[in-house]
Amino acid sequence: MSKVNFAEKFTKFSDLWSPRVIAEMNDYQFKLVKVKGEFTWHNHNHTDEVFIVIQGCLTIKFEDYDVELNAGEMYVVPKGVKHKPCAVEECQILLVEPRGVINTGEADSELTAENDIWI
Amino acid sequence: MSKVNFAEKFTKFSDLWSPRVIAEMNDYQFKLVKVKGEFTWHNHNHTDEVFIVIQGCLTIKFEDYDVELNAGEMYVVPKGVKHKPCAVEECQILLVEPRGVINTGEADSELTAENDIWI
Repeated sequence: MSKVNFAEKFTKFSDLWSPRVIAEMNDYQFKLVKVKGEFTWHNHNHTDEVFIVIQGCLTIKFEDYDVELNAGEMYVVPKGVKHKPCAVEECQILLVEPRGVINTGEADSELTAENDIWI
Repeated sequence: MSKVNFAEKFTKFSDLWSPRVIAEMNDYQFKLVKVKGEFTWHNHNHTDEVFIVIQGCLTIKFEDYDVELNAGEMYVVPKGVKHKPCAVEECQILLVEPRGVINTGEADSELTAENDIWI
């Protein structure tokens, strides 16, 4: 493989809430995503999910509390826990999760993105 | 869990080539490590290994080529491939790999670090 430069990869797409795969490690995928506004409440019943903020500020809402992440910060959303990512301004994120995870998890949503789109 | 701030975590240790665990996702660990100088040639027979440079410049030597990574760049070393990380100046790295992976892989080395040290 070639090395991956996050900033360079982020120039290759502009649509929101549509993760792009940049690398695989074993059966896990590393994905970049741009977000702005409010996502849908959802959960992933079979896996934890890692959020690493590359640029901007992300709020992950949970039922009882919020987590605010700035660039250089990460959070692991535990398996099965309902959450809702939000961002006031556009925010650039690195996601790590097993291959095949759907962005909207168990929720039925028009925000469900196509999977396995590589850049 | 609390959110993890990489810069804050890096203030908590100073020894080189000694990964510290900062988070787990399923059976994978996220580890921070400071490196400088030359590591030992080694490989991991059972897993790929992800390097993400947070600060500084890392060279990963392979038998036939080198990969140079700066801050904001990542590389996946494939399972079984012999490699040797090196850094002229101190470099701060995020590693992602399954729980239980030994830093020196299949190599016998005085650089083998204790595993599962959380910060």
